Amino acid sequence: MSVEGCYRELSTLAGADLKSDATRKALCDLIAESLRYINQAGYYLLDSKVPRKQYGMMNWNGRKSRPVNHALFRASMSITDFVDNVFKPGKKDQATLDRCLYTAAMSFPLARDLEADGDQKSPGTFFEILVGHIFASRYKVNPTRQITIPTLDTEVKIPTDFIFEIGNGRRIHLPIKISTRERVIQVWAHQAMLDGMHGKGRFKGILVCLTETNKQKNKSVVEVCLPNQWTAYQMFIAQLDRIYYFDVPVKYAALRENYPHIQVWPFSHFLKEANDLFKPV
Amino acid sequence: MSVEGCYRELSTLAGADLKSDATRKALCDLIAESLRYINQAGYYLLDSKVPRKQYGMMNWNGRKSRPVNHALFRASMSITDFVDNVFKPGKKDQATLDRCLYTAAMSFPLARDLEADGDQKSPGTFFEILVGHIFASRYKVNPTRQITIPTLDTEVKIPTDFIFEIGNGRRIHLPIKISTRERVIQVWAHQAMLDGMHGKGRFKGILVCLTETNKQKNKSVVEVCLPNQWTAYQMFIAQLDRIYYFDVPVKYAALRENYPHIQVWPFSHFLKEANDLFKPV
Repeated sequence: MSVEGCYRELSTLAGADLKSDATRKALCDLIAESLRYINQAGYYLLDSKVPRKQYGMMNWNGRKSRPVNHALFRASMSITDFVDNVFKPGKKDQATLDRCLYTAAMSFPLARDLEADGDQKSPGTFFEILVGHIFASRYKVNPTRQITIPTLDTEVKIPTDFIFEIGNGRRIHLPIKISTRERVIQVWAHQAMLDGMHGKGRFKGILVCLTETNKQKNKSVVEVCLPNQWTAYQMFIAQLDRIYYFDVPVKYAALRENYPHIQVWPFSHFLKEANDLFKPV
Repeated sequence: MSVEGCYRELSTLAGADLKSDATRKALCDLIAESLRYINQAGYYLLDSKVPRKQYGMMNWNGRKSRPVNHALFRASMSITDFVDNVFKPGKKDQATLDRCLYTAAMSFPLARDLEADGDQKSPGTFFEILVGHIFASRYKVNPTRQITIPTLDTEVKIPTDFIFEIGNGRRIHLPIKISTRERVIQVWAHQAMLDGMHGKGRFKGILVCLTETNKQKNKSVVEVCLPNQWTAYQMFIAQLDRIYYFDVPVKYAALRENYPHIQVWPFSHFLKEANDLFKPV
């Protein structure tokens, strides 16, 4: 099947049952097909302005891809490696796990970059399905996408990001974004709304992002970060429990060090701490 | 001077002193020049799906404009009418005032629609200058665009929408948007951040918008409104004191009727109540 055919198949199956084995199989097929597609492309290194990180870019029939983290991406990754590392129980090598996750998450977005101009939507949907499936299969429950406003008069439902009701009072509010830029304040605002409706701490707020890289006009790569804003949001709007990245921005990882100690981690940490997230601190 | 030349002049002068007479003169020049420009264009009515509102569209050299509220727009408006109604003291006819404000606010955005493809930025900047100048000249003070986070350790400044410090403890947080769509949650989130930093009620939150019209593919005009979301934001994120529109969406005006009674009004109301906004209720 073509990359596009695999994507349509995945959308359908994920919409029907995000946590299912059928969704996982369609996800694996799309990742494998995307990697096969981008393996035809040329690849060269870019000028990275990010400390201790190298970035490259793919090129195919004149179309250029988004920046690729050179140390994290492995175009030769096999689907067996991906499934064994991400979904099978047991202790994993952290570096290998990080590479499997990043390679899988970048596969289809890179293929779309090389196949079509300016398609932002389908890479975003793919990334949401990838992360949503990992959460849903881990907690064995599908998310909802709306929430009822508790009001004294009429019942009102409003749309939200993924909401997981895991049982025993455990709930997760899970926004998933390819990158955040200045739109990220929406995530803290949604968390504030859930806190206001249902009480603080009722929903764990977990934001998952792919990367914050940006290719500038002179072809150098930067990470677009607003750490002061994040600090203000975490202090004054609401508290997010975790922010996971597939390619952690240097300036956001540093936020862990100082008050309010925003917990920004590689996404691989979720796989390790998924069962501990609801333990009392 | 050309429309573009007038716009550059206005940007420079507004950046130097938003409340000044020089800014007002440049604003008037740009509005007059824009109206002259769009008076060359063709005009025809669209199919309006909005109850009790008619919309039209301009057409010039194959370029099409955004929808125009037929009852509010007067291409023949003179600058003297605009200045007398908007800036001179004394009692005004409400309908005339609404038309002057709407015509002025739409003038440059319409001209840009007919002159260039997909320029969102300069109409947004123009609208911000127009509204910002009306506030700044009314309260005789220029706004700032950043705020210092009160923290126990280091001093951190973050960028904001317009903040007016009027004196005697009176402060306004003034976001200005051509239209809001789903991005509007940012406005409530910024208000929550200011409330969290400085105490609730310390900054009056006033949102000013032009319109929420959208032209659909079949050329009918709708208003894109999310009243349930607004209700949830006002109940659970923060409280905005006023939301003024130059073309008030039907579904948002109705929000005044029920709890939490969000105060959505035509922008002309600001000119009447500017001195009363800080009276204790």
